[in-house]
Amino acid sequence: MTIPVDSGFQALIGYSIVEWSEGLAVAELAIGPQHLNRSGVLHGGVLTTLIDTVCGYAGCYCPVPGRVRRAVTLSLTTNFTGQVGEGVLKAIGRKQTGGRRIFYCSGEIFDGNGALVAVGQGTFRYRSGSESETGVPR
Amino acid sequence: MTIPVDSGFQALIGYSIVEWSEGLAVAELAIGPQHLNRSGVLHGGVLTTLIDTVCGYAGCYCPVPGRVRRAVTLSLTTNFTGQVGEGVLKAIGRKQTGGRRIFYCSGEIFDGNGALVAVGQGTFRYRSGSESETGVPR
Amino acid sequence: MTIPVDSGFQALIGYSIVEWSEGLAVAELAIGPQHLNRSGVLHGGVLTTLIDTVCGYAGCYCPVPGRVRRAVTLSLTTNFTGQVGEGVLKAIGRKQTGGRRIFYCSGEIFDGNGALVAVGQGTFRYRSGSESETGVPR
Amino acid sequence: MTIPVDSGFQALIGYSIVEWSEGLAVAELAIGPQHLNRSGVLHGGVLTTLIDTVCGYAGCYCPVPGRVRRAVTLSLTTNFTGQVGEGVLKAIGRKQTGGRRIFYCSGEIFDGNGALVAVGQGTFRYRSGSESETGVPR
Repeated sequence: MTIPVDSGFQALIGYSIVEWSEGLAVAELAIGPQHLNRSGVLHGGVLTTLIDTVCGYAGCYCPVPGRVRRAVTLSLTTNFTGQVGEGVLKAIGRKQTGGRRIFYCSGEIFDGNGALVAVGQGTFRYRSGSESETGVPR
Repeated sequence: MTIPVDSGFQALIGYSIVEWSEGLAVAELAIGPQHLNRSGVLHGGVLTTLIDTVCGYAGCYCPVPGRVRRAVTLSLTTNFTGQVGEGVLKAIGRKQTGGRRIFYCSGEIFDGNGALVAVGQGTFRYRSGSESETGVPR
Repeated sequence: MTIPVDSGFQALIGYSIVEWSEGLAVAELAIGPQHLNRSGVLHGGVLTTLIDTVCGYAGCYCPVPGRVRRAVTLSLTTNFTGQVGEGVLKAIGRKQTGGRRIFYCSGEIFDGNGALVAVGQGTFRYRSGSESETGVPR
Repeated sequence: MTIPVDSGFQALIGYSIVEWSEGLAVAELAIGPQHLNRSGVLHGGVLTTLIDTVCGYAGCYCPVPGRVRRAVTLSLTTNFTGQVGEGVLKAIGRKQTGGRRIFYCSGEIFDGNGALVAVGQGTFRYRSGSESETGVPR
């Protein structure tokens, strides 16, 4: 399962959404030189981007064909638990809980060897019209 | 003042470091379609990338020619206080305090109209050899 | 100026609100042995409590006599920038920005010598009825 | 299993450590009026205190009798996912990963009905002498 690329920033960074269901989203990214910082390891911004993405997606799954749910991130925290410079990253986001407007997610990123390289948690708000699972027209 | 681009990720995202001195760093980014999310506004990952960058730089200024200081981010929190889809962003990072190994910074990002679009704070650790302001060879 | 103690937890911890106006709140706390952790320094929970309190108050100032504004904290991050075991703490909370329902604040805590011991930022939501500055009956 | 109260702040707040092993700590707290805020629900500071406590303990288990490990919190983020005003809270902290000096933990708090009321994550640094599991004399 690979969800079509749906934003300019996704195309720029190059990650794929490989799994998406109610309360869960998984992304993958093959690390290249364009993702590294001046010390030659993954830039923190790549990790925060992936955490933000899979957390937001996890809360926005919409089972109705042709419709989507949208949210904005209110707050995001990432802890950088490991360093990596190559291989394929796997980012997993899970919705923890939430109400009609606000929801909370956590995310984890593993490197190609299964080592935890980042963990995060975020607070999100559904955009108007996206409060229910039927969402809005794409 | 514009600091030369010094990493693959900086080139990919396209921001410039326009000011850098002891405890302070300022970056600018002209927003393009490659920075937008699927709702057509700036992806949160662009903002977290800028916060991480200016905060890290703010703690790593090295006044000695030919030498640099390096750090890793331990934790980063960003609050997304506004939405923006075009114009030039200005990100300001300031070192708040710190010891020999650990330092703390805050960051703010303003859109082209001066509206606050993100605030953040981070915890950083100097890499070995970068604890003093004389740093290491580039 | 000292605002009357208005909650069980404030009485338990022992802080005072010494300044409160639109977008600003200041609290003070005289450190005692009941605030220390098992290492003999201030427990992190005292600092997070003060950050949460002054940030929440900063967004809830109500100029109308007999009325109040109420909010809930959605997310709070605190960086612990120093250690302290005695003296009087001063915590300052400032509202940074916000809309009708969500607002964002930052907080700083200084020890008796003026050293920065904690910095924080939070995301808050007004309770129903408290969205405008006229608030609700106490 | 109940670990003896070992700090002034623990005695003040009234929580108990009911489980403690390598990488795990569990605390319980019976909510009383002294834990409530001016809106009559649990003060956020109680939740951040419990998250900080169980996360710190989770990284500091010492299997050697008469010895302890100590750490300081560098950064702590708490998301407030529910509201509660009575009953017994259960806080669970888990060490996620870490190196010789820095470690990372996550925490969750459930109310008496099993509802998630707070989630958090923190970055910690071992105090000198506490880097290994043999710790220091109490």
